[in-house]
Amino acid sequence: MEVRVVKDILEANEVIARENRRLFEQEGLYVLNLMGAPGTGKTTLLERTIELLKDRWRVGVLEGDIATTRDSERIASHGVPVVQINTGGACHLDGNMVRGGLGALDLRGLQVLFVENVGNLVCPAEFNIGEDDKAMILSVTEGDDKPLKYPLMFQVSSLLLLNKIDLLPYVDFDVERFKEYARRVNPQIEIIEVSCKTGQGLSDWVKWLESRIAQKVK
Amino acid sequence: MEVRVVKDILEANEVIARENRRLFEQEGLYVLNLMGAPGTGKTTLLERTIELLKDRWRVGVLEGDIATTRDSERIASHGVPVVQINTGGACHLDGNMVRGGLGALDLRGLQVLFVENVGNLVCPAEFNIGEDDKAMILSVTEGDDKPLKYPLMFQVSSLLLLNKIDLLPYVDFDVERFKEYARRVNPQIEIIEVSCKTGQGLSDWVKWLESRIAQKVK
Repeated sequence: MEVRVVKDILEANEVIARENRRLFEQEGLYVLNLMGAPGTGKTTLLERTIELLKDRWRVGVLEGDIATTRDSERIASHGVPVVQINTGGACHLDGNMVRGGLGALDLRGLQVLFVENVGNLVCPAEFNIGEDDKAMILSVTEGDDKPLKYPLMFQVSSLLLLNKIDLLPYVDFDVERFKEYARRVNPQIEIIEVSCKTGQGLSDWVKWLESRIAQKVK
Repeated sequence: MEVRVVKDILEANEVIARENRRLFEQEGLYVLNLMGAPGTGKTTLLERTIELLKDRWRVGVLEGDIATTRDSERIASHGVPVVQINTGGACHLDGNMVRGGLGALDLRGLQVLFVENVGNLVCPAEFNIGEDDKAMILSVTEGDDKPLKYPLMFQVSSLLLLNKIDLLPYVDFDVERFKEYARRVNPQIEIIEVSCKTGQGLSDWVKWLESRIAQKVK
C-alpha cells in the first residue's frame, strides 16, 4: 500500500520531468542537477564555476533548499539570474518544484542552468527533474565508505566530484579505495578530484562541463 | 492528497513509537536516537562512547543503514550486542523498523540502547521511534549555516554534538555564529563540542549521557 503510493508519486514525477525536458530541448538549454550531502560544497562549487564560465556562457541557477534564501543570495552576488525554491520541509527537489521555479527565469536568455538540489545524499537521487546530467559531490571529510552505504546517488550520477581534497592530510580517507567503491556501484562514473578552496581540479571540471554544454547548446 | 498520505504515515508511526516506548519503560532501558548527515561521525562517536561506558553500563546498538553491515561490524568489534537494520533505500528509520530490530536483541540484558539512524540531516527528524532523547551530530566541515537551512533536526534534538573540532584551523566555520543559529531555532538545545579523533569534549558528552541514563535506569 505504501509502496504503491511511492510508485504513483515517482510515476507522476516522471511525466512532469519529461515535460521539463521538452522545454529545455526547445530552448537549447543544458541543465545539470547537482546533488550531495549538506555542507559538501555545492554552493561554493557553483560560485567558483560561475566565475569560470560566465564570460563564455549565459548561466542561470535554481537553488533548492528547505528554508532560507542564503544560497541564492550568494549566487546572485556573482551577477547571474537565480531563483530560490524553498521546499518547506521536503528533502529533495522534484519535477514539479523545478517547473515552478522555471516560471521565474527567462530561459531564452540562458544556455546553462544549474539546479542545486537540497543537501541530502539519499532522496534527491530518486527524482528526475528533466536534467541532461546528474552530478554529485562528496567531500573527503565524509568518509571513503559512502559509495557502498549510499549506492543510489552514485549509480544515477554521470560525474562524481571528490571535493575538499585540500583536507586530505587531516582526515582518514583513502582516495583509491573510494574510487574503487564508487566504480563498483557505477562502473561508468567519471571522477574528478577538486578543491574549491585552492582551485585544484576545477579546470578539469570546467572541461568536462563545457564538453557536455557544447553537445547541447548551438 | 499527497499531504494526507504523509499524515497517515506519520500517525501510524506514532502508534508504533508509543508501543516501543512502553517496551523500553517496562525494561528500564534508556534509548538514544542518534542522527546526522552521512560522514558526520556517528559510528565513530558510538565506538568511542561504548569504550567509555561499557564497564559501567550494559550497552546495545541498533545500526540503521540503507545498505551494508559495515557499521554493525565496527560496533561488534567493541564486544557489545548490535543489530543491523538495512532500510533498502529508505532515508530514515521509523518505529516499525526499530521494532523489527528489537526482536533480535535481548533487551533484558541491556540498560542503554543507542540507535544510529540513517545518515541524513532531514528525514530522520520526522519519525519518532520511542526514544528517550534525540541527539544530533554536525561536523565543522559541514558549514555554520546549517541550523537555518535544516531547522527541523535542530528543533527536535535535545543535544547537539559539534564534531571534528580538530579540523577548525582548516575550515571556515564560526563556532559562535553556529551556536547562535542553533539556539535561534531551538533555544533549549544543549551543545557540546567534541573531537572523536583527539577525544576532546568526550568527557562532557559522557557526563550528559550518564545523567540521562541515571534518570531512567534503576
